[in-house]
Amino acid sequence: MTPPQAPPSYRATDRTVPTRARERASHDRELVHAILDETSVCHLGFVRDGAPVVLPTLYGRVGDTLYVHGSTGSRPLRMAGQAGQAVHPGEAGQAGQAGEAGRAAPGLDVCLTVTHVDGLVLARSAFHHSINYRSVVVHGTAYQVTDPEEKRTALDALVDHVVPGRSADSRPANAKELAATAVLRLDLDEVSAKVRTGGPVDDPEDLALPYWTGVVPLVRGYGAPVPADDLAPSVTLPAYLSAS
Amino acid sequence: MTPPQAPPSYRATDRTVPTRARERASHDRELVHAILDETSVCHLGFVRDGAPVVLPTLYGRVGDTLYVHGSTGSRPLRMAGQAGQAVHPGEAGQAGQAGEAGRAAPGLDVCLTVTHVDGLVLARSAFHHSINYRSVVVHGTAYQVTDPEEKRTALDALVDHVVPGRSADSRPANAKELAATAVLRLDLDEVSAKVRTGGPVDDPEDLALPYWTGVVPLVRGYGAPVPADDLAPSVTLPAYLSAS
Repeated sequence: MTPPQAPPSYRATDRTVPTRARERASHDRELVHAILDETSVCHLGFVRDGAPVVLPTLYGRVGDTLYVHGSTGSRPLRMAGQAGQAVHPGEAGQAGQAGEAGRAAPGLDVCLTVTHVDGLVLARSAFHHSINYRSVVVHGTAYQVTDPEEKRTALDALVDHVVPGRSADSRPANAKELAATAVLRLDLDEVSAKVRTGGPVDDPEDLALPYWTGVVPLVRGYGAPVPADDLAPSVTLPAYLSAS
Repeated sequence: MTPPQAPPSYRATDRTVPTRARERASHDRELVHAILDETSVCHLGFVRDGAPVVLPTLYGRVGDTLYVHGSTGSRPLRMAGQAGQAVHPGEAGQAGQAGEAGRAAPGLDVCLTVTHVDGLVLARSAFHHSINYRSVVVHGTAYQVTDPEEKRTALDALVDHVVPGRSADSRPANAKELAATAVLRLDLDEVSAKVRTGGPVDDPEDLALPYWTGVVPLVRGYGAPVPADDLAPSVTLPAYLSAS
């Protein structure tokens, strides 16, 4: 869904250029998408009564757009739909965004972060201990999806982000379920990736110290699917699960 | 380090009682500690220029206190040390907190969240798809640690949270490194856990649908430690790593 003319990198802004370890930062679109597509749980941050809130939640991606969903009664979803919620149109880089995108305010300022921890980096010095990781941080304003067609597409994307192919092999949401589900849309615009790889970097004067040094990799994977107790024996494991 | 008279549960507040799925929420101290101790990477949220920021970072735990650290030049660490940063003393449940704790303002309002994803829950209906997870959300005000003794304890806790036993088997931070490292202290006070376990819960009218349903477990673990290229052959793998 990424338009063919999409530039290979997202724009760099004050918020997406880190103050520390700049050499680990990237705005490369393919890298950002690859990190986002490797998991389906993000940490969504928003401001409530002036204080930060960070909640884990599922997300899906369609091209350069992320979708998160929740009950229409959940806090961030309610907040994004409240008329009194500030859109902060005066913020750097966001001036007029709501209007330009043709979507009605209100919106909810969010920061959506996805992190993969790949290894523990054990240096000889406590100071140089680190973590190998790949993360994506998305800043922006999230809007409630009101178009029924986009809402369906978003919900399919959410299910398929968890297990590719699954939305076509489950009962689609009915009208009542659609009405009970709120979907937020967050465009990938102000976004960056950060990656650390490789071994420890010790100071030269520490190289002879007698401490073990190296990387302990973290391994992630899927175990064998566990059928529900009430699954009919005639229903066999679908190919998209046996391959995982 | 938890005092023996510590109550078995953290207090429930407006911020730590979820609006949705309350039956999954808990304030049990042991459960909260167990979830926090299973990993060493959290997502730390704070507010910058009115907008939320969520960054992955390492943390350590000493009793009912969490520590995060970073360069003295990193944003959240700088912000917690800025005299102009609001402490929000008028917020519910936090009135006078800075003063009572005997620590000087300023502080930084944060939300620190830790999440373990344990399984993908595939229901027959797209609507009832879910995730098995365990999460902890901590709300509070983080303060820069200025006492040198507490700073050392915190840094040891950070390293030992990544690999238990490691702080005693690496070179401790020297004065220059200590000066370059800022440590934030966040007391576990307004904190809750949320846990989903078990299989999918489908609507009765969907039970005969021909879709596979069940749970796909997520498996995490450590791979074999990879020594650094420049590790002397005489340095063997320590017991705390061969056991992992």
